[in-house]
Amino acid sequence: MEQLKRLNDRIVSRVNANLSEFEFDTENFVSNSLEYDKMLKFYAFYGITSQHPLYFDFKNSNIAGSYFLGKCHVGRSSIYKSDIRGDELKRKGDAINGVENLPLVEDELISIKDSLLYKTLVHSNSHNPESPEEFGIRNTVSAHYSNIHGSTLEGCFLGPFATVDMMNLHSCIVGNFSYVQAGELFHRKINPGTVWIRNSNFEFKYNFKKEILDSFVGVNETYQPRGIIYDFVKEREQEYEKLFDVMNLKPIETPDSSAVNRYAVVRGNTKIGENVLVSQRAFIDNSIIGHGSNAQENSYIINSSLAGLNVTTHGGKLIYSNIGLETYIGFNAFLNGKPEASIDIGDGCIVMPHTIINPDVSIEIPENNLIWGYISSKEDLESHIIPLDELAEIRDSLKIGKMAFTGNGSVFIDVFQKRIKQVLLANGALFANGENCGHAQDGQNISYNIIQPYTTGTLQGLYPSIRIKP
Amino acid sequence: MEQLKRLNDRIVSRVNANLSEFEFDTENFVSNSLEYDKMLKFYAFYGITSQHPLYFDFKNSNIAGSYFLGKCHVGRSSIYKSDIRGDELKRKGDAINGVENLPLVEDELISIKDSLLYKTLVHSNSHNPESPEEFGIRNTVSAHYSNIHGSTLEGCFLGPFATVDMMNLHSCIVGNFSYVQAGELFHRKINPGTVWIRNSNFEFKYNFKKEILDSFVGVNETYQPRGIIYDFVKEREQEYEKLFDVMNLKPIETPDSSAVNRYAVVRGNTKIGENVLVSQRAFIDNSIIGHGSNAQENSYIINSSLAGLNVTTHGGKLIYSNIGLETYIGFNAFLNGKPEASIDIGDGCIVMPHTIINPDVSIEIPENNLIWGYISSKEDLESHIIPLDELAEIRDSLKIGKMAFTGNGSVFIDVFQKRIKQVLLANGALFANGENCGHAQDGQNISYNIIQPYTTGTLQGLYPSIRIKP
Repeated sequence: MEQLKRLNDRIVSRVNANLSEFEFDTENFVSNSLEYDKMLKFYAFYGITSQHPLYFDFKNSNIAGSYFLGKCHVGRSSIYKSDIRGDELKRKGDAINGVENLPLVEDELISIKDSLLYKTLVHSNSHNPESPEEFGIRNTVSAHYSNIHGSTLEGCFLGPFATVDMMNLHSCIVGNFSYVQAGELFHRKINPGTVWIRNSNFEFKYNFKKEILDSFVGVNETYQPRGIIYDFVKEREQEYEKLFDVMNLKPIETPDSSAVNRYAVVRGNTKIGENVLVSQRAFIDNSIIGHGSNAQENSYIINSSLAGLNVTTHGGKLIYSNIGLETYIGFNAFLNGKPEASIDIGDGCIVMPHTIINPDVSIEIPENNLIWGYISSKEDLESHIIPLDELAEIRDSLKIGKMAFTGNGSVFIDVFQKRIKQVLLANGALFANGENCGHAQDGQNISYNIIQPYTTGTLQGLYPSIRIKP
Repeated sequence: MEQLKRLNDRIVSRVNANLSEFEFDTENFVSNSLEYDKMLKFYAFYGITSQHPLYFDFKNSNIAGSYFLGKCHVGRSSIYKSDIRGDELKRKGDAINGVENLPLVEDELISIKDSLLYKTLVHSNSHNPESPEEFGIRNTVSAHYSNIHGSTLEGCFLGPFATVDMMNLHSCIVGNFSYVQAGELFHRKINPGTVWIRNSNFEFKYNFKKEILDSFVGVNETYQPRGIIYDFVKEREQEYEKLFDVMNLKPIETPDSSAVNRYAVVRGNTKIGENVLVSQRAFIDNSIIGHGSNAQENSYIINSSLAGLNVTTHGGKLIYSNIGLETYIGFNAFLNGKPEASIDIGDGCIVMPHTIINPDVSIEIPENNLIWGYISSKEDLESHIIPLDELAEIRDSLKIGKMAFTGNGSVFIDVFQKRIKQVLLANGALFANGENCGHAQDGQNISYNIIQPYTTGTLQGLYPSIRIKP
């Protein structure tokens, strides 16, 4: 274990060097988080398909629990339970979004060096025009269930349940349960519970009240997560372990046009519609997943229904919730309905990332609304909702409760809706007559290779160096 | 599948080119043997331990079902269900047996090229002084359950249940159920059912009668195996499949000094003694495995007892048999006892490789005897047995029934007994007070990595190229 411990110490030093101005010591977090027994016990795996260029290169690392797809390099890193989904990596000749004249000269590669990703998801649709062939994460520590969504990172610390979305961060700290989608950031500290979206046309900002944040995703003095959302996830952890014990599971019954990943939990009286994608580590219990919907990695759908064409993004959680047609559930949204207090959301709504709904009585949200922030009652709802057509009229600024918006409302909505459409298309939700094939249709023919570390000796806990090519 | 089929065609052409003088067409065998569905479905795996130098390199091959340990290279080959056990590969600085002044300049590597190994075992203790750093198999096809036991092969065909033992073969055909341990052979055809051991001091030869061979391990016109031994193995095949379905099995209860491989079948009321080694793909049912005994790969021990310090070599099969202390069971021996016709073998006996005992009434073999060939009755026994001390007296020749021996009997016995002692030592049978550690004690800390092929596309059935180093 000596060498694995030395590896982790080295990562801590490098991240601390990047964050020295904040006097933030990641050692405190790291030494209290790592479960060495599980890092030895859990296996990692990678997918082989004919649809993705194949290149895996793992060196001097512990990659326990991780799932790799697409081209990935991991060096001198500890990666524990991370999904690293490279199925949206760009290919040679592709243009990066918004930069038409700079086609990639080779296939894009996820490259993770000197980093510690802890129960983290890395999604591969990166947006850094400076390095289109390499989606890089270096000298970075990310905590429990943070989302690295197409974001390059250098010298950063991400708190528990933080999301960084399609951006580039250099020497930044992102607080627990913060959502940031703000282009490029240098040497910034993002306070816990911040929801911040910014581009040249608009800015959206919201901050959770400290006491609410503390009760849902707080951290203690060693930056370990606690609170209702963390407990919710932790309680269900062992359901996944069962999936890892069996080599070939009997596939869940689904229409031919749908895919349920074999590393997803599906139980209870669940119905899966056409063109549905249930990703690895999604959790579906006693729910209806309507046509063209998806349940992305780390999403939970329990005693709920999706009417159809719904995107349930990474970490979205629906409990006793009925979601209307084409309604979008943002990252880490926590819709905590109860048998006696269900959540009904109409068609065409946008539930902003990191929205928490925790009602005592049933809550109904009419169609075509945008909602955000913390909603525990009908009164709360009034200051956390705006009809999309009202927002579309805004041209300078708007303040509702703790939410501040500036810029062009109609562009804001347009950007969201385009993105939702693009996700649905990529996931195969619009598949018909052999056209618009997406992940739901492609994801069915995959073989998983399983890799484990040395169990004894000086290399204990480290994986051998493995390089895989076609 | 196109490329996998082309690969197999290529192997056939190369082997045929080597065997052209015999007008033997391996195509006939290959096209009737390959189970492409299983080659796609079964996974291969390799072991990571701190006790073996690590280097795996797999290229342009299908390696379904195989188990790899130690340093292995596989290129342009189809390997199906083969065990490839590299735990006795020599290391840099080691001397090859009998060649003192030629230490290895690097670790020995198993290298398999342009070959098809079908349900074959490759054991790594090689004896070719010409290439001590490489244990090579090229341009070779081996059929169901043949044993490649430390033997280098170039341009060969091995029939079903053939064993080649610590030798080197060039452009040879070894018939079904033949056992050969004869140094180096060039351009030879070994008839089916031959048991042949030869060195500079002695020669042992036996041939099974055609009709007996046919009923136990025959082949049809496409060289597919049939007969009692093949049926016996085939009937138990699916017991192994269950082991492959589960990632982590609850270990079988054994003393601390013993090891039961997680890919062995152990069932019924079985008792495992101290210092016992049960290897992968061994099959133990309702039996007693006495102290210091081992059940090697592909051995079957059913309703039987081993008194202790017994070597049950690769493919040895014991049914309703009681085996005395230090008695040795040679490769592929088939002791087919029945509830009403058990087989009792005394202490210190040597059961020659490829011996078949198939009695109608109980058979008892006194201690310190050598037995061989085909024994179905007490009358048969008389012409298939010699006390070791009588054999030790022989200095020129001896003929008993169909067995012919020439040379020095005492050297013959000595060679056998030294080898048995060496196997017991290597397997940890003599472990005591922390000394004489062997496979039984070392084999407990191993992690298995699982590899699978492309399931679709032009590379369907081929494994990606994988290179693994520490």
